[in-house]
Amino acid sequence: MKTKNRFRDYKKDAQELDFGEIESDTRNRIIRFNNTPRIIGKMSVVGEKESKGPLGRFFDRCENNDKLGEKTFERAEIRMFDTAVRGAVQSANLTVDDIDLLISGDLLNQMTTSSYAARDIGVPHIGVYGACSTMTESLMLAATIVDGGYFERVLCATCSHFATAERQFRFPLEYGCQRPPYAQWTVTGAAASLVARNDKAYERFPKIVCAVPGKICDYGINDLNNMGASMAPAAMDTLYTLLTQTDYGVDDFDLIITGDLGKLGSDILRDLMRYRGIRLGQNYIDCGNMIYDVNQKCYQGGSGCACSATIFNSFIMNKLISGDYKRVAYLATGALMSTQSCYQGETIPCTSHAVVVESAYED
Amino acid sequence: MKTKNRFRDYKKDAQELDFGEIESDTRNRIIRFNNTPRIIGKMSVVGEKESKGPLGRFFDRCENNDKLGEKTFERAEIRMFDTAVRGAVQSANLTVDDIDLLISGDLLNQMTTSSYAARDIGVPHIGVYGACSTMTESLMLAATIVDGGYFERVLCATCSHFATAERQFRFPLEYGCQRPPYAQWTVTGAAASLVARNDKAYERFPKIVCAVPGKICDYGINDLNNMGASMAPAAMDTLYTLLTQTDYGVDDFDLIITGDLGKLGSDILRDLMRYRGIRLGQNYIDCGNMIYDVNQKCYQGGSGCACSATIFNSFIMNKLISGDYKRVAYLATGALMSTQSCYQGETIPCTSHAVVVESAYED
Repeated sequence: MKTKNRFRDYKKDAQELDFGEIESDTRNRIIRFNNTPRIIGKMSVVGEKESKGPLGRFFDRCENNDKLGEKTFERAEIRMFDTAVRGAVQSANLTVDDIDLLISGDLLNQMTTSSYAARDIGVPHIGVYGACSTMTESLMLAATIVDGGYFERVLCATCSHFATAERQFRFPLEYGCQRPPYAQWTVTGAAASLVARNDKAYERFPKIVCAVPGKICDYGINDLNNMGASMAPAAMDTLYTLLTQTDYGVDDFDLIITGDLGKLGSDILRDLMRYRGIRLGQNYIDCGNMIYDVNQKCYQGGSGCACSATIFNSFIMNKLISGDYKRVAYLATGALMSTQSCYQGETIPCTSHAVVVESAYED
Repeated sequence: MKTKNRFRDYKKDAQELDFGEIESDTRNRIIRFNNTPRIIGKMSVVGEKESKGPLGRFFDRCENNDKLGEKTFERAEIRMFDTAVRGAVQSANLTVDDIDLLISGDLLNQMTTSSYAARDIGVPHIGVYGACSTMTESLMLAATIVDGGYFERVLCATCSHFATAERQFRFPLEYGCQRPPYAQWTVTGAAASLVARNDKAYERFPKIVCAVPGKICDYGINDLNNMGASMAPAAMDTLYTLLTQTDYGVDDFDLIITGDLGKLGSDILRDLMRYRGIRLGQNYIDCGNMIYDVNQKCYQGGSGCACSATIFNSFIMNKLISGDYKRVAYLATGALMSTQSCYQGETIPCTSHAVVVESAYED
């Protein structure tokens, strides 16, 4: 157990960080997909605040009421999830009956949202938990199942909601608690991607070429508000593995995106990578850092499963479909803490799963 | 949403149940493994109560203190998990560094146990949530990953603890709440299985031949204590799919085991299958029904992720290794409820994933 809070003053002692543990990882961690499973459908739904952010016009659907007319925020979240799933299926001109499997997860305890939504959708379901890294975790598993020829069409979905996440992980909104300057804002939204076996009809769709399952990293943060600093080492570990265990260099990607490190977290990631000899230039961005405008007072930016999932399934996927981006590395990041453990003095274990997605159009 | 409590007096109206929804499932739900991934290592750890039950002598390790000398029950659960994982690796004469991936889950919020344990184990990790169905969910995914040739050795693990589960899902033990006669007792234990690519050296180990991902079923139970009745329809759906979408009949299995339906739940499953024209005879057993003696006052029997996982990784695996059992269908069952939702009046969605495991020894 690591209890030293290495990031309280990270800039000062980042150079002294001990990376021994990570460098000793000699196992192959890359999952390579030889049959290039395609992402043939997608849908993103966001709440009001997100729709007013810089990326607002790219989302498929914007809700103007965070309760969506439902009685509870939980039910609103379920409805958003359902909309995203059905929308993704529709966008591929299919029906729910054509889907072989749904892989999904969310932030709520016992995965309420995805389990309850999956009940009504009626598709065989695998529940995964990777907190905010759920989208890449699902995409990785879906690609594995489709690439191996076990099923033809597997749907991946996730969602998060500011009100339900705050109540569960921090305080109910009604308390009006003050937020520290390093806090992030959980994105209200849901997104789904449909992964299908490569087929003549799907040739023009983006393909998943490889994936890296994350290793759990914990650098000793125990502040439930400081998500960015907690998750940055996990993103570093996965990104470093991707860049060293494949032939890809940073410049081979049109974009490297992380999930929801926010401003602080992505700065830490840049530093951590620099200390390992890798410079992340202009083609590295963080979804949490992009989703809100600085005037929206979300401090370090967005977080939550839906943060990177909605951006990936709108802006990024559009660019991959059109061929503007040839290759994107998508590393969603998840903080796997339980409030219970943090109150018991535990630190926050984090993970980051990566998928590499390529456009169907070559240079 | 189905809100009719169909099982309050299930014996009376079971004949009137509406199975239309399930019969309309025409999609292929079977995952077939052509490269016969093997289960080459296993370990089961249980608490004191379980060690005194009828199967006590089969478990690999019995703890005589439910806190294992730790400060909290949560930490005790993490320690059991760790013991099971390392034990399974050791039983195959390997080290943790030889493991490519760990797939695990547990009952606690945000999967505390498996995330925290995976942090210390240092193997790439995929978190899954299927409540008590976690073991078969992990085995199914591990077999898919290994069979497809993506990784060589994938470890599956899960655990549960009576004290942590009661506190989270019902009441802290210290309250001394009365338990209704249809309640079950969460098994304190942990288990792990190591799935490896088929290889000359592993020929004598049991193989996973196919799997069925579960569909979420909800017949309207909203009583957090009535797990058996909640989960029986999900087990029925998966078992019925297995028996109709493959050539297997009930008699082709030496044993059909369900996870933790308990006495009441397994009776319901027998009835549900009979109404669909399938008689589960003597070769059907339920792990929840087996793990405790009637004198141990656990009412309907055991439940929890560890219930079927520990029995599978001890008694059942021993028989498969020795060739006494040629083929076993293992259907772990999970109730995916959140207490929050149940207090809000929601019913309990359930699932059941199945794997079919065969001995290396033919008839």
